[in-house]
Amino acid sequence: MRPAIIVHGGAATWRGGPRATSAGDARRAAALAGCEQAARAGDEVLRRGGCALDAVEAAVRSLEDDETFNAGYGAVLTREGGVEHDALIVDGALRAGAVGALVGFRHPVSVARALLERGEHVFLVGEGARRFALEAGVPEEPVASLISPGARARHESAADTVGACAVDRDGRLASATSTGGIAGKRSGRIGDSPVVGAGGFADDALCAVSATGQGEPILRLGLSRTVAELVRAGAALDDACRRALTTLAERTGGHAGVIAVAPDGRLAHATSTPQMPWASIVAGSLSSGIEP
Amino acid sequence: MRPAIIVHGGAATWRGGPRATSAGDARRAAALAGCEQAARAGDEVLRRGGCALDAVEAAVRSLEDDETFNAGYGAVLTREGGVEHDALIVDGALRAGAVGALVGFRHPVSVARALLERGEHVFLVGEGARRFALEAGVPEEPVASLISPGARARHESAADTVGACAVDRDGRLASATSTGGIAGKRSGRIGDSPVVGAGGFADDALCAVSATGQGEPILRLGLSRTVAELVRAGAALDDACRRALTTLAERTGGHAGVIAVAPDGRLAHATSTPQMPWASIVAGSLSSGIEP
Repeated sequence: MRPAIIVHGGAATWRGGPRATSAGDARRAAALAGCEQAARAGDEVLRRGGCALDAVEAAVRSLEDDETFNAGYGAVLTREGGVEHDALIVDGALRAGAVGALVGFRHPVSVARALLERGEHVFLVGEGARRFALEAGVPEEPVASLISPGARARHESAADTVGACAVDRDGRLASATSTGGIAGKRSGRIGDSPVVGAGGFADDALCAVSATGQGEPILRLGLSRTVAELVRAGAALDDACRRALTTLAERTGGHAGVIAVAPDGRLAHATSTPQMPWASIVAGSLSSGIEP
Repeated sequence: MRPAIIVHGGAATWRGGPRATSAGDARRAAALAGCEQAARAGDEVLRRGGCALDAVEAAVRSLEDDETFNAGYGAVLTREGGVEHDALIVDGALRAGAVGALVGFRHPVSVARALLERGEHVFLVGEGARRFALEAGVPEEPVASLISPGARARHESAADTVGACAVDRDGRLASATSTGGIAGKRSGRIGDSPVVGAGGFADDALCAVSATGQGEPILRLGLSRTVAELVRAGAALDDACRRALTTLAERTGGHAGVIAVAPDGRLAHATSTPQMPWASIVAGSLSSGIEP
């Protein structure tokens, strides 16, 4: 078995407009660097012999710490000017933990992980999710400390999301996804990110997938599950990713990006949006890019 | 095209214990009568030439009004003694509306329908969902008026859920699902019911499905989507329902029931739980039962 990890920093948000700007260039460079750092954080777990679940959690925590991305610290603001996080973590044994409209935590993916480990409920939202996180010992932070200067500026920007997929040396798969949702969303709006089969999916027999892009179309189709079902039907991983995006556009008019990992360590990334920063590490070798 | 509708009143809750009791008999009879009435409510819409979406909404509203069922009036109580509803409505064009942890409405399915029609967000939870419902003109009710005497007694009972699937004379499919979740749940717990692909799914090219049973396993697998994918792979509708339940048990240890409708008006129902009351109407002909 060949451990491997791939991460993304969100589709559809890295344009500098019709002409490139130096601000756009700097933001793209920061996104690429943040993805590479997150891939290293996950790879370190895998190289120590850690499981895929630990690796994707570590990678997404790194992205949540980076204000470049719309997740954790740096998430976009709701219509009311607050911050509400959604996150999902799943493994290939179909275990899952998900939180939605969570207020007050820097690392929503770790609240989702605590829920997965508890094994009682899979999906908690709002105040109930907050109370669970506190019971689980996850440190709460004042909402103001989670809002980066950049997030205030991005109040009107498009959606994006971060995610990671990994396979460990035992061939176990995992996927994690985390987001602040869309700027100006209603309080209580849940997008695709925390929904099993939409924002992420993993099945040890098929692949692990994490999605980003237009939340409502991704949720209506079940984009991550669509990738997995194409793999089940015999498609190669990269072909499954591309075909799932075509289906998304045809059926919903939506656009998105996906990353995926197969049990044999093959990786894939695809997007129907202008740009999606990604980074991967296989056998110590780092690759990254920002083009579709 | 042959319009058809099938409804269910929830899996796994209609046992009278090891020996049948007269109370158990009465409750089973009430469940069967409630399902038949809901099927008639939906069938009436279809016979008037209404669309499948209107039919499943009408059927589920009927079930939400019936205190026999764990949905709308009669929903089980949370750990804190409140009532939080989850509901989903989807059509075969992949449109969807979903609400989770919604407080204060007798007909959560109609809040989900209003969200589908609005076409902005797909999934709203908690206070944000409540505010949307008020904006949409759905009448709020005091929570105390939503708690039936029976619901208080069922505080410790197992989960169940109601649902309906229909196809209209134009061959359009729809599915609706509504629940109070599991008795004693944490506030903010979301089960499978409002999750596209888990509690319900519809695709005009495949089938419409509504699921009931153990929410967390159904959510982890994506049970309704699993039925649809088996149909896509060539399985007959009833075989797809049975095989999806087998997969659910094998992969998660969970048990559930499903109902489904195909574009040609064929219906199916299956359960891996002891009992699930259901009723269907095709071409004016009513069928119903409570056995698996």
